[in-house]
Amino acid sequence: MDLSQEIKKRADFFNTQLEIFLKNGEPEKLYDAVRHLPLAGGKRLRPVLSMLSCEAVSGDIKNVMPLAIALELTHNFTLVHDDIMDKSKLRRNLPAVHIEFGEATAIIAGDLLFTKAFESMHKLQVDLKTFKNVEFGLVDCVKEISEGQQLDMEFEKRNLVSEDEYLEMILKKTAVMFMYAGEGGAILAGGTREQSNALNEYGKCLGLGFQIHDDYLDMSSDEKTLGKDIGNDIRNGKKTLIAVHCLNTVSGDDKKLLEKIFGNIDASDSEVKQVYELFNKTGSINYAKETANKFCEKAKKSIEILPDSDAKKVLLELADYSISRKK
Amino acid sequence: MDLSQEIKKRADFFNTQLEIFLKNGEPEKLYDAVRHLPLAGGKRLRPVLSMLSCEAVSGDIKNVMPLAIALELTHNFTLVHDDIMDKSKLRRNLPAVHIEFGEATAIIAGDLLFTKAFESMHKLQVDLKTFKNVEFGLVDCVKEISEGQQLDMEFEKRNLVSEDEYLEMILKKTAVMFMYAGEGGAILAGGTREQSNALNEYGKCLGLGFQIHDDYLDMSSDEKTLGKDIGNDIRNGKKTLIAVHCLNTVSGDDKKLLEKIFGNIDASDSEVKQVYELFNKTGSINYAKETANKFCEKAKKSIEILPDSDAKKVLLELADYSISRKK
Repeated sequence: MDLSQEIKKRADFFNTQLEIFLKNGEPEKLYDAVRHLPLAGGKRLRPVLSMLSCEAVSGDIKNVMPLAIALELTHNFTLVHDDIMDKSKLRRNLPAVHIEFGEATAIIAGDLLFTKAFESMHKLQVDLKTFKNVEFGLVDCVKEISEGQQLDMEFEKRNLVSEDEYLEMILKKTAVMFMYAGEGGAILAGGTREQSNALNEYGKCLGLGFQIHDDYLDMSSDEKTLGKDIGNDIRNGKKTLIAVHCLNTVSGDDKKLLEKIFGNIDASDSEVKQVYELFNKTGSINYAKETANKFCEKAKKSIEILPDSDAKKVLLELADYSISRKK
Repeated sequence: MDLSQEIKKRADFFNTQLEIFLKNGEPEKLYDAVRHLPLAGGKRLRPVLSMLSCEAVSGDIKNVMPLAIALELTHNFTLVHDDIMDKSKLRRNLPAVHIEFGEATAIIAGDLLFTKAFESMHKLQVDLKTFKNVEFGLVDCVKEISEGQQLDMEFEKRNLVSEDEYLEMILKKTAVMFMYAGEGGAILAGGTREQSNALNEYGKCLGLGFQIHDDYLDMSSDEKTLGKDIGNDIRNGKKTLIAVHCLNTVSGDDKKLLEKIFGNIDASDSEVKQVYELFNKTGSINYAKETANKFCEKAKKSIEILPDSDAKKVLLELADYSISRKK
């Protein structure tokens, strides 16, 4: 099976539906800003996961499309607002929405994307109990994402963050959307409680593994060079799992070195390199890789109870891919 | 009847419910930011209107409280984001959320307030059709408010705006929430379609009259002095009904004067005064007052079909108050 083909097939179907849903409107500039990011591509992992979940419990993916669209719009709404907060200039190789359309319009465009996620949910054709259950999942997701984003910002200013705190933060900021995609897809397909719980757990482990592998990718480099991102993360004191592990492991002179440089916005390139070498010395980079692997295995194990299907095979390969991808 | 007492009675009941709903959470700073504005008071016009609508068609206000809370949270969410966009420093005599907690946390707090509006809606105890109908009204409201805010910003940069365009903008930015409050309260009370339509129309006229009277209040002053707000509005080229009327009325030298000064951020105090005098000369200030009066009369007429009740009396007085208040 060709995993990228399997994902592309579903992403293409999704993209057609998304384009129909995100039609133009007035004022034109606002709707251009709303469409800018969602129609600029992206991996579409969240909607594809909801579609795969649906298929894995023998559902019709047409029934899940309003949820799939809501997932992607919600994800994009958080990216638009995050880019303003982080002062990021680029997203998906395009100028971020606030760079292209100005900050005020970007704030409104984010709000409108969130609104349109609920508009999409209202197209679900299900009974009241299911509708409220699934829609409330979206409400809960955004609540957790907001809390996770705030934690992420606060962690940057703290000296020490425990591994549990770190995991809680990425659970809220990243994994809840995968949990919701997995569980929601199964519920809308009419799956059993056991199945939707299994796909919730799969989403959780996939999301955690995915995010930790991101941390790992940012910090490892084939060319043995220290890229701009590594320097920024170290200078900003970004609490990745690697940093968290190292901060909680070092002692003596290493600890003093780390405390002096990590989170020091004026650190020199050679100081950044010293911290990077410390991350290696304490085994923190390797620890992140192993932790991501562990979540990948848990993800695969959690869906053992599902009947065999093409979708299940894709989900199993997707878990492996999440910790083996190079970008 | 003492109108302010009637409103206060309902606002007090509402405030108790709101405080219970908006309990603390973690991260603490984020929830402090979320609670900052909604718990700082305010007139509570939108929730009170939904409660009065409910009473006017013999409903139990307890059934409408989840909507009342959602209305106030949505209103506050838009204020938090608007204050960032407008760089406003004060709101309800307190530092704006982005001033007190920083812009990043303010953006998230706004998002979370919006999320919590939906969380509140999920407490409604009604059948699927009614739930979807009423909740979709909220989705539609925020869509229109977003469009209205964008129009407001774009109008500041345009030379000419027609009265119809101005009315569309304030309809979206302000009146839709009043329409939704009036209609939603009636629907949740089990009112007839005719009654909920009447209260929608009442909300529309009240909201339009209210906003135009705001424009009028900002531009009139007992002390015959030109306050800071008047100067700012003229220098920013803010398209109030007064400005719109004047821009579409003047000709010759007056037109040249207006084009030179209105929207010129560097205009002197004496130039601002000239524009203010022009607003008077063209009858634009008076025109705004008359238009607000007209909407007040329409608001009262629209609820003639409702049975007599204390709530109806309050609604009638509220319409008069909306165009007679001094602040």
